[in-house]
Amino acid sequence: MRVAYAMNSKSEIGICVIGAGRAGLIHAHHFRKNVPFARLVAVVDPSQEAAEKAIHELEINRYYTDYTQALDDQDIDAVVVVTPTIYHKEIVVAAARAGKHVLCEKPMAMNEQECDEMIAACESAGVTLQMAFMRRFDDSFIEAKRQIDSGAIGEVVLVKSLTRGPSKPMPWMYDLKKSNGPLAEVNSHDIDTLRWFAESEISEVYATGGNFRNREIRHEYPDFYDSVALTAKFSDGKQGSIDGALYVQYGYDSRVEVVGTEGVIFLGQTHEKSIVVAGRDHQLKRPFMNSWRSLFKEAYLAEDTDFIASILEGRNPRVTGYDGKMAVKVVEAGNRSIGSGSVVKLD
Amino acid sequence: MRVAYAMNSKSEIGICVIGAGRAGLIHAHHFRKNVPFARLVAVVDPSQEAAEKAIHELEINRYYTDYTQALDDQDIDAVVVVTPTIYHKEIVVAAARAGKHVLCEKPMAMNEQECDEMIAACESAGVTLQMAFMRRFDDSFIEAKRQIDSGAIGEVVLVKSLTRGPSKPMPWMYDLKKSNGPLAEVNSHDIDTLRWFAESEISEVYATGGNFRNREIRHEYPDFYDSVALTAKFSDGKQGSIDGALYVQYGYDSRVEVVGTEGVIFLGQTHEKSIVVAGRDHQLKRPFMNSWRSLFKEAYLAEDTDFIASILEGRNPRVTGYDGKMAVKVVEAGNRSIGSGSVVKLD
Amino acid sequence: MRVAYAMNSKSEIGICVIGAGRAGLIHAHHFRKNVPFARLVAVVDPSQEAAEKAIHELEINRYYTDYTQALDDQDIDAVVVVTPTIYHKEIVVAAARAGKHVLCEKPMAMNEQECDEMIAACESAGVTLQMAFMRRFDDSFIEAKRQIDSGAIGEVVLVKSLTRGPSKPMPWMYDLKKSNGPLAEVNSHDIDTLRWFAESEISEVYATGGNFRNREIRHEYPDFYDSVALTAKFSDGKQGSIDGALYVQYGYDSRVEVVGTEGVIFLGQTHEKSIVVAGRDHQLKRPFMNSWRSLFKEAYLAEDTDFIASILEGRNPRVTGYDGKMAVKVVEAGNRSIGSGSVVKLD
Amino acid sequence: MRVAYAMNSKSEIGICVIGAGRAGLIHAHHFRKNVPFARLVAVVDPSQEAAEKAIHELEINRYYTDYTQALDDQDIDAVVVVTPTIYHKEIVVAAARAGKHVLCEKPMAMNEQECDEMIAACESAGVTLQMAFMRRFDDSFIEAKRQIDSGAIGEVVLVKSLTRGPSKPMPWMYDLKKSNGPLAEVNSHDIDTLRWFAESEISEVYATGGNFRNREIRHEYPDFYDSVALTAKFSDGKQGSIDGALYVQYGYDSRVEVVGTEGVIFLGQTHEKSIVVAGRDHQLKRPFMNSWRSLFKEAYLAEDTDFIASILEGRNPRVTGYDGKMAVKVVEAGNRSIGSGSVVKLD
Repeated sequence: MRVAYAMNSKSEIGICVIGAGRAGLIHAHHFRKNVPFARLVAVVDPSQEAAEKAIHELEINRYYTDYTQALDDQDIDAVVVVTPTIYHKEIVVAAARAGKHVLCEKPMAMNEQECDEMIAACESAGVTLQMAFMRRFDDSFIEAKRQIDSGAIGEVVLVKSLTRGPSKPMPWMYDLKKSNGPLAEVNSHDIDTLRWFAESEISEVYATGGNFRNREIRHEYPDFYDSVALTAKFSDGKQGSIDGALYVQYGYDSRVEVVGTEGVIFLGQTHEKSIVVAGRDHQLKRPFMNSWRSLFKEAYLAEDTDFIASILEGRNPRVTGYDGKMAVKVVEAGNRSIGSGSVVKLD
Repeated sequence: MRVAYAMNSKSEIGICVIGAGRAGLIHAHHFRKNVPFARLVAVVDPSQEAAEKAIHELEINRYYTDYTQALDDQDIDAVVVVTPTIYHKEIVVAAARAGKHVLCEKPMAMNEQECDEMIAACESAGVTLQMAFMRRFDDSFIEAKRQIDSGAIGEVVLVKSLTRGPSKPMPWMYDLKKSNGPLAEVNSHDIDTLRWFAESEISEVYATGGNFRNREIRHEYPDFYDSVALTAKFSDGKQGSIDGALYVQYGYDSRVEVVGTEGVIFLGQTHEKSIVVAGRDHQLKRPFMNSWRSLFKEAYLAEDTDFIASILEGRNPRVTGYDGKMAVKVVEAGNRSIGSGSVVKLD
Repeated sequence: MRVAYAMNSKSEIGICVIGAGRAGLIHAHHFRKNVPFARLVAVVDPSQEAAEKAIHELEINRYYTDYTQALDDQDIDAVVVVTPTIYHKEIVVAAARAGKHVLCEKPMAMNEQECDEMIAACESAGVTLQMAFMRRFDDSFIEAKRQIDSGAIGEVVLVKSLTRGPSKPMPWMYDLKKSNGPLAEVNSHDIDTLRWFAESEISEVYATGGNFRNREIRHEYPDFYDSVALTAKFSDGKQGSIDGALYVQYGYDSRVEVVGTEGVIFLGQTHEKSIVVAGRDHQLKRPFMNSWRSLFKEAYLAEDTDFIASILEGRNPRVTGYDGKMAVKVVEAGNRSIGSGSVVKLD
Repeated sequence: MRVAYAMNSKSEIGICVIGAGRAGLIHAHHFRKNVPFARLVAVVDPSQEAAEKAIHELEINRYYTDYTQALDDQDIDAVVVVTPTIYHKEIVVAAARAGKHVLCEKPMAMNEQECDEMIAACESAGVTLQMAFMRRFDDSFIEAKRQIDSGAIGEVVLVKSLTRGPSKPMPWMYDLKKSNGPLAEVNSHDIDTLRWFAESEISEVYATGGNFRNREIRHEYPDFYDSVALTAKFSDGKQGSIDGALYVQYGYDSRVEVVGTEGVIFLGQTHEKSIVVAGRDHQLKRPFMNSWRSLFKEAYLAEDTDFIASILEGRNPRVTGYDGKMAVKVVEAGNRSIGSGSVVKLD
């Protein structure tokens, strides 16, 4: 198959990464060098400085500060949307109309309706829309899914997933209208994992949120929460549990536990390096995982590679717009539950 | 101090264990041999056969099949109540009236009102009432509490605790009116840990429960659940999360995670022996923890020892009737939430 | 069987612990309370103060400062020898002649010839001689042996065992003529484990030793080593590797690794409590195992219990004088190798 | 600095990988795409089929079946030597004479004299000679070295390192004259780690080897061993311990332990994925590390990157020909010790 691709030079997919921030550059570097049958054509960033810095670092020569110009670029076959969430809908719809395939970072959009528009636009245009839930491409997650499917733990009863980030939130996150909060920013992945492992849709959620680590902005952003605990019911009766936090300071912490009728799966790694030191304090000390960039490094590459493969093979992507939309629905429901203090049912 | 006790023969506390089942015998063996200043006088069990077997095994010579007779026995200073929960209130109240100190197994009683009666009876009689939340006497739990108090993780934000048991439930557990379900039977400990580590009272709970592993009794006991996930709010805003399960089959699993503003504590051990084997299947294999009797072996002894010490020293026990009652309240609220599908506030 | 014992009051074995130090008291406490069919009669210590303190703590009323008087005590059926090694031979031989069964702490004696005399004396007298290699009674070690025997790792190729102690050596250890060094004091256990798991005798050793942590006594005790690495060949070709150290300061460290033709077994636990803490330093911190008293607590009791059982059942003990002697031979060979810098063959 | 390089097109180093086997292709892929300022020009393999397959996979267009022709290629500035060890000396000397920089896979050569010739040739020609001990570029190893240097464990006393490979040896390995055995093939890395962490030279070794897993070739290759245990003394008195094995079947196992005067460092990871599964067998099961390609993936890239950087910066490589030679000396001494059964001193 790879031979067949190589023979047809048309089969190389021209890529433009929209958004030259940290996550954008991860994708860009992969497409620049390590994704077969992809060619990084350009980056887009409204900041000319950021865009110039990016292309220098990437050793490419084309950038745009206006994404609409990139959509006119005939060398570009596909875009990777890594902008703030509030721009996702507009850009994805425009990209679809311009006939570009789309790899869209999470969360998909600000609300369910935006997701519907994005999905419809991509379907109309016949372009691929892949959601960037990279955990689905992580070897350990894939092995977990394989074990679940093989019946190693019987039938799934409860899926627990947590994500906690070490860093101080960026100011725009404080405004829930712009960020949808940690449920969107950090727990979108957990929601997707729950759905993937349970193979069922979440029908009901209850969540509690509070601001414990960013107290200085309580007055200005009273709705902001940096810690959330959520219990979910699936439509088939299964149970789900998520917790999320920002600025936990001790490290990047992401773990999943799947309880079945006959067994359990633990997923995740809390240490960064394979070294343990003990000294006169009689303590075994091990560096905590520092960042999602360490933990999911390989997964990003696998995700980008599969995006290209799905386009070339004309098949559905492994994570779809529907997956993105369902996660957004749960985010919305969770935020409503935090606000109201009540259980929120999803239609 | 030990010398002082030893000089006064009156300071030896005569013990009677009421209920000669598995947990009862654990207490009985400790009091028989390993608890300073305690003397095991008798056991009580309505089954004469069980009682006889117990005293033979314990190498003592006194038993009762009627607990009221034990309460008349002047050699008995204190009772350990290890009967089914539905009998706790009656026995504890009677024991208090007979002037006996009480160590009461969890859950304390079937409902809050029973707890109030038990507390009142013990207060009136001036006897000690200690709740048997043995985890509070476990070295690792104590160290966790010490770390929390020392500020090692900043301020507590979220306490998560889970308990899952390997064995098929005993038939009487299926009837929630008799057992109050897994929230009472297995998660009472988790509820107590949440309160202990958060140093706050739970004010609101949402829980979801289902019967996944005991489907054959669904028709007869439609309310029975063997898997539960619960989210709690504390009155001071902290967050709590509990999951519980019966008949998970893979082992006894009990773990706690405390997330603070600046750190995290992991508590618990999933393996039974310190051995790992790898063979041609390229798998590292390690025996799972088999039972709470292995995991909390030392904690039971420490609990029994502290019960005696608190009596002799005339101080409050480390876990009180109030602690028992507050756990019962959360059990009741959780069960109501499972039944109604709504959030339940505790007064 | 227990019933049968209980019926015959003669079957209770009267115990005297000779040596009221730390390890002696561990045995004494077990025999005092937790070993079935044993009765702690007396302790012996040349220091009257130590002996008095011990019987007070043990709540018994008999002690001797001269062990020969204890050997005349008809209530005493068996002695536990926990004195400095240099006295082992004399005491064990005398005990055997007095008809007392013997549980002898490791190392068995200062040299092979002493061991032979001890074995001969016990055989002549028809008394049990058990060596106190308590690791053979540890659940994890027993499970490892069971796995080996079951073929889980194919055939054994290499057995590695290490023991490192945290504490500053006691002054008498510096004189190799009195202590035989760390190979005897800490690695006797490892040598026994090698023999047990390999089921073969060590035929050749090479060892290197050095004094790294007690440099202040280098001039006075130039032969003393506090760190040793040893490679062994077994008579059937298997391989062995041992390291030992005193005063490592970071904790008590004892681990075994068994490499087979098709697998590997890891044995040992480096942490003390089941708690891990991570804070702002981005380090997972876990308390190191503090002492052999924590790690092998249960093993001591099982050892003492089996000693009594072997006497009552008239069977050979699970660890014999021969096992003790073979370990002493390897200690002697290792020390000669350290001294000469050459490989030493065992006859 | 990167800018400076980029401005000067001469600063891009043309690379030729000699030997298109598994390890050769790892290097080739890195130089093809991920090593800054490097350009993969060609591969060499005596098998035309292997060479053609390689360049197709690498998407380059030049190969040679005769390495001397590659040395005439002016586009090639540096060679990576990944042939069987017996050819290393000839190729490296020729490459040096042709003015090519050299990255040489381990083991460096068959004996010390060959190493000397290689070092001399590279020095005369003024080309870089880097040994491919990739563990020196592994993040965890680097962190261990940093911790050692920081005094976290006091002064180093004992360095233990082991490497065990899962696969059946390739037939050429059976002939020690061609392979120098597992000490060379698998333990060269361990020897280098001992020297690196101890910062001292090994002065004395004793080793024992045996053939346990490849018994069918015992008659044809009586000297072959597939399991080796080695004890080393360093010239400054430190201690070392190595074990190595081929065809252990349970997985790829590589771990290091550094014991200091005040602490210990554990280095290595035995599991492959961050997943643990427990089922009805009450076992925690975790996939064992499968291959050095998984464990040291990042280290290979870092090594290749630093090779180029050292050339461009005109500095010494982080691992030198001297390091390669010292490892070869220890291999030779170890093999002599296995053969003679005696301790072997290194001059």
